[in-house]
Formats: sequence, C-alpha cells, structure tokens
Amino acid sequence: MATPSTKPTPLLKDELDIVIPTIRNLDFLEMWRPFFEPYHLIIVQDGDPSKTIKVPDGFDYELYNRNDINRILGPKASCISFKDSACRCFGYMVSKKKYIFTIDDDCFVAKDPSGKEINALEQHIKNLLSPSTPLFFNTLYDPYREGADFVRGYPFSLREGVHTAVSHGLWLNIPDYDAPTQLVKPRERNTRYVDAVLTVPKGTLFPMCGMNLAFDRELIGPAMYFGLMGDGQPIGRYDDMWAGWCMKVICDHMGWGVKTGLPYIWHSKASNPFVNLKKEYKGIYWQEELIPFFQSCVLPKECTTVQQCYLELAKQVKAKLSKVDPYFDKLAEAMVTWIEAWDELNSAGQNSEKKPNAAAK
Amino acid sequence: MATPSTKPTPLLKDELDIVIPTIRNLDFLEMWRPFFEPYHLIIVQDGDPSKTIKVPDGFDYELYNRNDINRILGPKASCISFKDSACRCFGYMVSKKKYIFTIDDDCFVAKDPSGKEINALEQHIKNLLSPSTPLFFNTLYDPYREGADFVRGYPFSLREGVHTAVSHGLWLNIPDYDAPTQLVKPRERNTRYVDAVLTVPKGTLFPMCGMNLAFDRELIGPAMYFGLMGDGQPIGRYDDMWAGWCMKVICDHMGWGVKTGLPYIWHSKASNPFVNLKKEYKGIYWQEELIPFFQSCVLPKECTTVQQCYLELAKQVKAKLSKVDPYFDKLAEAMVTWIEAWDELNSAGQNSEKKPNAAAK
Repeated sequence: MATPSTKPTPLLKDELDIVIPTIRNLDFLEMWRPFFEPYHLIIVQDGDPSKTIKVPDGFDYELYNRNDINRILGPKASCISFKDSACRCFGYMVSKKKYIFTIDDDCFVAKDPSGKEINALEQHIKNLLSPSTPLFFNTLYDPYREGADFVRGYPFSLREGVHTAVSHGLWLNIPDYDAPTQLVKPRERNTRYVDAVLTVPKGTLFPMCGMNLAFDRELIGPAMYFGLMGDGQPIGRYDDMWAGWCMKVICDHMGWGVKTGLPYIWHSKASNPFVNLKKEYKGIYWQEELIPFFQSCVLPKECTTVQQCYLELAKQVKAKLSKVDPYFDKLAEAMVTWIEAWDELNSAGQNSEKKPNAAAK
Repeated sequence: MATPSTKPTPLLKDELDIVIPTIRNLDFLEMWRPFFEPYHLIIVQDGDPSKTIKVPDGFDYELYNRNDINRILGPKASCISFKDSACRCFGYMVSKKKYIFTIDDDCFVAKDPSGKEINALEQHIKNLLSPSTPLFFNTLYDPYREGADFVRGYPFSLREGVHTAVSHGLWLNIPDYDAPTQLVKPRERNTRYVDAVLTVPKGTLFPMCGMNLAFDRELIGPAMYFGLMGDGQPIGRYDDMWAGWCMKVICDHMGWGVKTGLPYIWHSKASNPFVNLKKEYKGIYWQEELIPFFQSCVLPKECTTVQQCYLELAKQVKAKLSKVDPYFDKLAEAMVTWIEAWDELNSAGQNSEKKPNAAAK
C-alpha cells in the first residue's frame, strides 16, 4: 500500500514566478532552497550578456540576458533599463503566471524573534490571498489575521475588504535608506521586528522598495514598470519608487489594496553610498515635484483597465513633468512602449501560452 | 552637602492631567502608582453623585460628580453625558494643562515581550512630543524612533513632520471589539505585541478608542467632545468614535498628526456583549452613513481655529445627518453648547487660572 505523502503542496506552486535580477552567480538561492525550490524562477541577467550566471542545481528556471531581451522585444527593448535592477520588470512581462514575487540577490532568509526562519514567500502569498482594507484604518492592523479582527467602530459594510494587488515586504539588518541617510548613519541596522501587516490607505503614497515584493500580475502587472534607469539615464535607484507611485494611483482608482509590513528578509550588505548618491541626486530633488504630481493625479472614470490607466498616466507625466526635466518626456514615451510590449507578449499569450524563447534550463 | 537627587523628573509633570471616568473605587491606580503618582488626576464620577469614590492614598486629584458638573456648567451641563464614560470629556474641559492622558479604570499595566512593565504614559508623551508624518507613509513606521528613519524615496521636504495632536494607544488581552464581534468570538484575546507607532495618514479615518488615549489639549482639546451618550440617549459606546471622526477631520484640515500603536495597556475584562449590543445597535447602522459623511466632509479655509472648525462641523452635522435620525439634530446642538462651555471655562481661565470648584483632595 502506498503511503500518502504528508508534505503539503506549496501554495500557488503553479501560479507564481519568482523574478530575480542579477549580475552574479545565484549562490544566495542555497539559503532559500527549502522555500523557493518548488517554484519557477525567472532570472533577468543585467549587464554583460556574455557572462555566464551560475544557478545552483535543482532550481527550475529560465534566464534572459540583454541579447534575449533585445531579440524578444526588438525596438521596444528600449523601455527595459540596462545596468540597473529596473531590468527586473522584463521578467514580469514574460511571466505567464498570476502572481510574481521578486527579490534581490543580496537578500537572505531572516529569523523571527523566536529564532524561526521566515518563509517570506509564504507570507507574501497570505498577504495577496487575503483582502485589503484601504478605505478605513483598522487599529489592530490586518483584521484577517489569526487572533485579530475589525475593532469597534469599523463599518460593517467595509469588512469584506477589496482585492489585494501588492504585498510589500520589509528588511532586517540593512534598512533601505537613501544615500544621504546612509552617509549620515552608516552604522544603523534595522533590528526591530514589527509583527504586522497593514493596508496602505487609499489616497496615501508610500515608498515601494523592489527588494522583497510580491504582486498579483493579472491584476496590476502592466503598472509594474520600473522605468528608465541606469545606463544612459540621468537617474538610478528610483525604479521601484516610480513603479510604486504609478501602481498606487492606479490601485486607488481601481479599488484594489496594497499591503506593507511582514515578511522580513535579511538584507545583507549596504550598497556604496557615494555611488548611490550619484545615481540618486536628481531623484532627490525631482521627487519634490513628483510627489505632489502623484498626490493630485486623478484618473478619469473612463479608464477601466490597468493599461488604460497607465497610458493616461503617461500622458499626464508628459504634460506635467516635462517642465521638471526632458527626461520625463522620454520616460513618458517609454511608459507607452512598455504597455505596447506588455500587450504584445500577453494578449496573445494569455490564450495560446506562447512563450518567448529563453535560455531555459 | 546635599546630594542631588538622581531620580529624573517625570516628563511633563506639570503640563499633563490624567482624566479617569469611573463609577467605582479606583483600586486600579495601585498598579499604576509608579507611573501616575507624580501627575495630577482629574476624576469624573459617573452615575449616582451621592456615592463616595475611594482614591488610593498618595495621589493628587480633583474629583467631579454630576452635581459638580451641573453647578459648574449650569444649563450647559446638558452637553455632558450621564451614565456613560463619555462624561470624561468634562475633565478635558476643566483641565488647565497642555496635555491630557485618559484611561479607563479596567485597564492595567501591560508587559512588553521581554516581560518589562510598560509605562504607557511615558510612551504617549514620547508620541506627542515627536512629530507626525500624515502626508506620506513611512514603511519603517515612526521615523523619529531610535533605530529608525525615513526610507529611500521619502521626500526630504516632508521629513520635518507636523505637530502631533493625538496619540492612540492599544490593548492587550481583551480587544476593543463591538458587540457582534464579541458575541461571535467570545474567547478571542489580543496577544500580539506590535512594536510600532505610526501616523494615521491624512484623509484616512480610524476608530479612535477612548480607553488609552492622550492628546495635546492646547491644540485639539475643543474637538475632543465625546457626544451625547448613555442615559436618555438612543446610543452608547460611540462616544470615542464620534470624537475620533470629528477630531481627525479637523486635524487633517489644520495640518496636525494623529498617531496610533504603542503603548499597550492590559484590558482586564470584556464588557457584557448583550448590554453592549443594546447600546450599539443604532450606531452600527448609523455609522454606515456617518463614515461617508466624515470622509467627504470639507472645512472651509476660513476656519482657522479648532473652535471654528468644530462649529462648522456641527452645522454640517445638522444639515446632513438630521435625515438619518433626529438624534443628530440634538447632537449638533450639544456640539455648539460644548464649544460655548469650553470657551467659558477656558478663554478667561487661560489668563486668570480661574479654576472651577471641585471636591479636590
């Protein structure tokens, strides 16, 4: 008699891709093996395409380098950044799964206060599969979590919540600081484990970090464009921020939720603050105009798909931010190209499961 | 030679009153003695004024019963609730201090995960004395806290923050649930210690609980009216909610911040859910109309003081909520009476330090 396997099937095993942008061998995956091995990986190789990236044995993956991106997207490849982790969004585009988890290759497994290793992916999936509450704040945080609920005074009509589009995880050890803060506080480490997940309220913007992030690709994928950064661009390290602002405005418009908090990963090393300052300095003053732009941005109710919202946003970026810098003209055009490329790979793909060729395992 | 005392002066010792509404002897103060004894207490005795409330020795207090309230406010005493903890707001009105901390008499000292007793008052003071960040969400929670800061992508122009008007603390053990949730989950206890303080973003409403609450009376005091509840009224247990919604709309208008999170107190016992249901049931369906009202409420920019804002709010309550129930007509009038009474006791009082007579120790 066969004994039934007692090992549970990993959550969303066939519905989630893990997207990793990298320039080096992926030894960091060894630590994640118990959690990631059942899933499919999409590796986006940044920088020199002739370099070979080693992936530890046993992982199921496809890998794209710059040559692959150029071949697959043709002239539209111009919207994908080079020499910047913003290139990760190419992975979102070629995925055919409902969910994406993306993580940086300098992020390791963190431990909770009891010393237990945190399965970050599992927590993201829990966050994505339970509703969000953007319309009213719950003081006991995630009301759907075991041992918690909506508190007195929370309107009953809002207790069903809304679809969760994005789950933003945090970092122990090296916090995600900008270059000036890194320079001022070189020794600061994040040691505080805050045991909470909460919905970022409707109408509120936040700084979305791409280091440890999951989202419902079917819902919000086309808004997850990480912009033009790195090689040939005047700015870096604002890729995830840009995506976060665009995505949040669109989620607010569409009535979807965005969560932040758990899970933590262990961010192993701080990047060079001097290099970061060079990448960031334009962003640091541009964002003073970008934030008011996004805070006051209104999408017309005729926009009923993410693509329509995103193209409308591109139009508004062109109209209102070009005066900040000609870069935003170029960015607005790239936003349009991104949507065209997304639709090319996805509209047919959704039915025919057409998959671009990659250096798959 | 006199040795200097090494005991530090308690924070804001002469600038903060602790307001406690009660119907019973205040034995619960014994547990709070190390933290509360240096401060002045304002006890608002609810119910039968002929009853004597015992206060443990060594506390500095003044006590007001219904007879005192009637004597001090005359006909305006009608705005102060009877047989409901909403009567606590009378204590806010007679205080002459800059800050108020209010706590229920079934709240005890909680312990943090390391087993250390939590000085709730000290944490509230820290919350009030450091700025709030209502205009943009910081993913590492309170950026002013030791070991934390603003993360990458947080606009530098917003890093000074704004004045904090309110600090809303939480509860371990018995969570603050409404009657239906109490009935459905009679055994649920809050055991999760979330080590965070965060600003409730601008434009977002939340359910403010009066059990463990502190505020800057000089800034926001006149908006902290706990409404008409209890004896002779069709509703109870919405006193703090009402105050919270009014206060939040006014803080958003004035550009002040509201924090929630730490400190925790230990909430010892659940109130009777059947009694609570009777008090709450009108509120449960009324709030479905109250929330959209407060969410869409706009105060004209001519309102530059809390009193002006509050009177404008009263006007809008009368105009837009009377159709929900005639009760809101009465409440709107009581809101006006409250402001008149507040100004009577405070405008002169601020200069002359006129203090109403109370059964002071």
